[in-house]
Amino acid sequence: MKYIIIFLFASIISSAQISKEQLNIMPWPQNISLSEGTFPLTKNFKVNITGTPNSRIFIGVTNFLRRLDGRTGLFFNQGFVTGLNEVPDAELQINCVRAGKIELYEDESYLLNITANKITINATTDVGALHGLETLLQLLQNNSKTFYFPTSRISDFPRFTWRGLMIDGARHFMPVDVIKRNLDGMASVKMNVFHWHLVDDQGWRIEMKKHPKLIQMASDGNYYTQEEIKSVVKYASDRGILVVPEIDVPGHGTAILTAYPEIGSKVLNLHLNSGEKGQQLTQVQSYNLERNAGIFSPTLDPSNPKTYELLSSIFDEVCPLFPGKFFHIGGDENEGKDWDSNPKIQEFKKKHNLVSNHELQTYFTMQLIPMLKKHNKELIGWEEIMTKNMSKDAIIHSWKGTNEGVSAGKSLVDAAKGGYRTILSNGYYIDLVFGVEDHYTVDPMPKNTTLTDAEKARILGGEATMWTELVTPETIDSRIWPRTAAIAERFWSNENVTDINSLRKRLNTVSFRLEELGLTHLKSKEGLLRNISNNQKNEALLDLSNICEPLKRYSRNGAGTEYQMYSPLTLFADVCTPDASDALVFNEAVTNYLNNKTNDNQLIVIDYLNKWIKMHNNLNTLSNNAPLIQPLLPLSKSLSDISEQLLLKINKKQTIDASVLDELLEKCNSKEHADVELAVYNSLKKLVQA
Amino acid sequence: MKYIIIFLFASIISSAQISKEQLNIMPWPQNISLSEGTFPLTKNFKVNITGTPNSRIFIGVTNFLRRLDGRTGLFFNQGFVTGLNEVPDAELQINCVRAGKIELYEDESYLLNITANKITINATTDVGALHGLETLLQLLQNNSKTFYFPTSRISDFPRFTWRGLMIDGARHFMPVDVIKRNLDGMASVKMNVFHWHLVDDQGWRIEMKKHPKLIQMASDGNYYTQEEIKSVVKYASDRGILVVPEIDVPGHGTAILTAYPEIGSKVLNLHLNSGEKGQQLTQVQSYNLERNAGIFSPTLDPSNPKTYELLSSIFDEVCPLFPGKFFHIGGDENEGKDWDSNPKIQEFKKKHNLVSNHELQTYFTMQLIPMLKKHNKELIGWEEIMTKNMSKDAIIHSWKGTNEGVSAGKSLVDAAKGGYRTILSNGYYIDLVFGVEDHYTVDPMPKNTTLTDAEKARILGGEATMWTELVTPETIDSRIWPRTAAIAERFWSNENVTDINSLRKRLNTVSFRLEELGLTHLKSKEGLLRNISNNQKNEALLDLSNICEPLKRYSRNGAGTEYQMYSPLTLFADVCTPDASDALVFNEAVTNYLNNKTNDNQLIVIDYLNKWIKMHNNLNTLSNNAPLIQPLLPLSKSLSDISEQLLLKINKKQTIDASVLDELLEKCNSKEHADVELAVYNSLKKLVQA
Repeated sequence: MKYIIIFLFASIISSAQISKEQLNIMPWPQNISLSEGTFPLTKNFKVNITGTPNSRIFIGVTNFLRRLDGRTGLFFNQGFVTGLNEVPDAELQINCVRAGKIELYEDESYLLNITANKITINATTDVGALHGLETLLQLLQNNSKTFYFPTSRISDFPRFTWRGLMIDGARHFMPVDVIKRNLDGMASVKMNVFHWHLVDDQGWRIEMKKHPKLIQMASDGNYYTQEEIKSVVKYASDRGILVVPEIDVPGHGTAILTAYPEIGSKVLNLHLNSGEKGQQLTQVQSYNLERNAGIFSPTLDPSNPKTYELLSSIFDEVCPLFPGKFFHIGGDENEGKDWDSNPKIQEFKKKHNLVSNHELQTYFTMQLIPMLKKHNKELIGWEEIMTKNMSKDAIIHSWKGTNEGVSAGKSLVDAAKGGYRTILSNGYYIDLVFGVEDHYTVDPMPKNTTLTDAEKARILGGEATMWTELVTPETIDSRIWPRTAAIAERFWSNENVTDINSLRKRLNTVSFRLEELGLTHLKSKEGLLRNISNNQKNEALLDLSNICEPLKRYSRNGAGTEYQMYSPLTLFADVCTPDASDALVFNEAVTNYLNNKTNDNQLIVIDYLNKWIKMHNNLNTLSNNAPLIQPLLPLSKSLSDISEQLLLKINKKQTIDASVLDELLEKCNSKEHADVELAVYNSLKKLVQA
Repeated sequence: MKYIIIFLFASIISSAQISKEQLNIMPWPQNISLSEGTFPLTKNFKVNITGTPNSRIFIGVTNFLRRLDGRTGLFFNQGFVTGLNEVPDAELQINCVRAGKIELYEDESYLLNITANKITINATTDVGALHGLETLLQLLQNNSKTFYFPTSRISDFPRFTWRGLMIDGARHFMPVDVIKRNLDGMASVKMNVFHWHLVDDQGWRIEMKKHPKLIQMASDGNYYTQEEIKSVVKYASDRGILVVPEIDVPGHGTAILTAYPEIGSKVLNLHLNSGEKGQQLTQVQSYNLERNAGIFSPTLDPSNPKTYELLSSIFDEVCPLFPGKFFHIGGDENEGKDWDSNPKIQEFKKKHNLVSNHELQTYFTMQLIPMLKKHNKELIGWEEIMTKNMSKDAIIHSWKGTNEGVSAGKSLVDAAKGGYRTILSNGYYIDLVFGVEDHYTVDPMPKNTTLTDAEKARILGGEATMWTELVTPETIDSRIWPRTAAIAERFWSNENVTDINSLRKRLNTVSFRLEELGLTHLKSKEGLLRNISNNQKNEALLDLSNICEPLKRYSRNGAGTEYQMYSPLTLFADVCTPDASDALVFNEAVTNYLNNKTNDNQLIVIDYLNKWIKMHNNLNTLSNNAPLIQPLLPLSKSLSDISEQLLLKINKKQTIDASVLDELLEKCNSKEHADVELAVYNSLKKLVQA
């Protein structure tokens, strides 16, 4: 009887009117209105497509059905959808006026209307319709026994046309399945540009039929075949995503120069002791693939005609693999050291009236524009390419900020004012492992800007950048997701959508649902913890990981030499993520407790402190059979010690010497252990100082 | 101080002499001797290779270093190993006399010798050396702070030359990354044949350039490109594994006939009412890709010359993709219904003096032998191909058993006696989700056999078969692993290695280590449970999954129509696995308790019973927000009810009516809920009857 009552009650509360605050849509749509009522899902649910869409809609609808079926276990009758108007009386009707193109400024809008017995998605293009299907999936609700959609009406379109994610396939090679599952993740949060960083000091990753040396000598056997690249481009296109390849030149050139040292800038001065006195010869320097992280000097020689011959020939082979309109040529972090020390290059500068290395690089970059134009491609480069003589056709990718000694996104504004189209990545460096709030509060459009409308229009959008010095295929998803979903919202939704509490609540569900796409950001944790604990029961380790975060910025690999490209990334720091989950809960609990010292508020804080004392004991025991736990013990001991003292303090059982507390507290602020930091330090400090 | 003592103690016990019983090697080596002492691992550990190996050894050694580094976090200095004798003074010296070939009867032996400061692996071939590296990885030990190898000497070689795993890529398409991670798993337990079932009623999975219709009409877009196939073959070869492709004919022919209905056997009899009375016309029947599971009638027409033209042309395109010597042509489960009803085929039989459909099929199969021989391939077929006129060059794949109304592996003995080489799969059908013991106790060599030595020699080995009606890329690993490691031991190790307790203990560690290869058999569980629980904390669900097993044999999909190829496989039964972990513990506890009713033994049993009462309450609560939990409640309720009664009985607090107990018990034997069964039923029954 009790049993029945619970169910009835659950049914009643679940069927009540849904409020917008209950929805977990991300990015939040431009317009949404809810009405009372539901569309109940059944086994007979079917989809019908009309209009003149691109065939990607069939793949999208079939995937939509499988995902919805996987969530609900309803065993839909409809299997593969392969044609127009297959089920005219279907409950979900999708109409696309025309086939969408995978290019900027394409119409991505959609109108989603859910009534009690019919759902319609109307869109100009199939790309818009796919966005509508993602929104519909995010609208799924349930009570205790059934699944349904709330009756509602959503009209939606993006704020920016460039909503990108960059993945670096060079530092650590990321196989095609990693790329594809991340494309699925992107599509699910309506991102539309995949920037594929394919070449860097650590490797050349594109199969080259005419220049096989690049693969043979500069890839360690880890590269994308041309067929794989085409399959990624197709996979992306099927999801409404444009692929922008990057070959980074003239700096970050070690891989290219490992195969073609003759176009490098470095000269080796040989003092010949025999023969004429003081005679010097220069000879070609040899290069080896870089194994460390950092900025390195190997740079292409802009004075050598062979450099342009090779690049032109490379573009001739690579460009046809990418039907999109853009090609990223990098252009960043060229320090020009090897240019300065090369007499031939110095002579070349004089001859061409190039006063600085910047001007020399501009000369270099300008040679690439016609090579790309030949293939109908526009050139994009990191902000360093923007010098006074740079073509206005180039797109400027803004990445520097306070870290690099300039104000955040300065080049974005400079570019827009200077007549360049531009994209913002400063503030979206997800590899720095900052919390989601740090990225969410950055807007591609500067606040209170004095830019004119024409200048504003040149800001195409933004791009999250996932550099891969410190990730492997197993861990990369946990660095990209779920934070990138918040960045996607920044690019798509109205600028006024900024509530961080709403974001966190929605992100929790969005993150969970991303897993159905094959992303491993949540489930990879367990396997890594099992390795660290040496297959012992590891609740204590999990608890610690939920309050620790990997060291931020590049401090985990400060000099770039602690972790090399083949170093193990199976450690505790690799398990930990930004926005450590228990730390968020604890920090909120401490704030509540200090604002209002009720028993309930106190209890949550005390429970955590007790948990951490016990956790340290358990870790100690586990460490007897797990060497990889040893480096964590000093940190868990510090936390346990301060927890003991704080309990005494909170329970007012004992007066604690402030200096003892401070000393213990500061041990919790250490960044010396296992490449992680305690994300509860600030809250502990508040408790100490309260 | 306590802290220090614990560590000292741990060091002492860990450095003590290791016994064979402590090692978790699988398959167990032919000869192993341990001596007192250890080889300690440090950051400076390096490998050197000498001799004349195939280049696969460089890939193998580099992967070995990365895996060892990932386990130990030692940050080895050695990165990529690419050449011979790179580090002459390395601690691990590998010598291979000659390059290994990927073929049967290749020398796979190795001699591994570990002393306090040097390790050597000596092998005739690199394939043997790779096996030695896998054994070395399995020998890794640790104390609380360091990792080491026990000083020891192992000489090892396989018992059978065919140690196979079949994966069906047709029923559910398994992308290349799934195949590759399973090849890594195979190599880690020294399996050497990957049988790739590429064609069946549900799909044709090979890219065909000359017959694109097979892909366009019969693959749903899910197929392996020829480049992917080559990359799988290369990947396998780098791991010492031979790939044997299968195109299943003449039965299981729906996919082929969907593209080429003109070579099908089915005739459609049209009664023409207009025109001459009684006139009948036959016309080509059209076929559609099969979406259900089962045995279907679509069969190639053996009387049609076009059938052979097409097959010959298909083999011409497919054979060169597979450099190995064997080609599997299926040949199973052809019921001949469409042959019986086709007058043209009946006529053909008469004309060729073919008395039965078996003889007709033999006629058909014999036509394929020269087509394959042309490409230097030998024909393998499922046991149905073995009829009196079948060529002795064919290899017989024995699969039928008591389920099919014959004694287990009867055809294996018949084949060996009949002069055929043969492979055993009966007893190794891992898709039936039986417990590991069921497979481990089956030996390819019949017990107490009267076979002559020559006949015995024709038994090449065995093969585990993973049919994919009820698995997806997300769940397949949990159906293959870890049980296949036990089967691998059966194929490699001495026939006397049969201790099931030793097996279970070792399997626990082997299973854990398989994850480092990218296999997901353990970690996929969490994501699936999260979906079922609708992102709620799911300990109760996990607890239930650890005592439930999916319905065995094919009873989960009895008529073959409950689950279609696009049905959701994200349900509770998909999370559950054979050898449910808590059930094993509980079953042992009950046995112990009933043998010896000590308080300690009783306590374990009681703890479980209490846990299951609480679990049911928690599941009830969770189900308020998780429709997918509803189907589990009747089963958890039954378990909770009997647990309550058993507690009363054990605690002797109350005399329980036996009929009440029996009734409650039988509810726990139900197979009606959520496609699972309670793996603790037998132990509950023992407690009831005690």
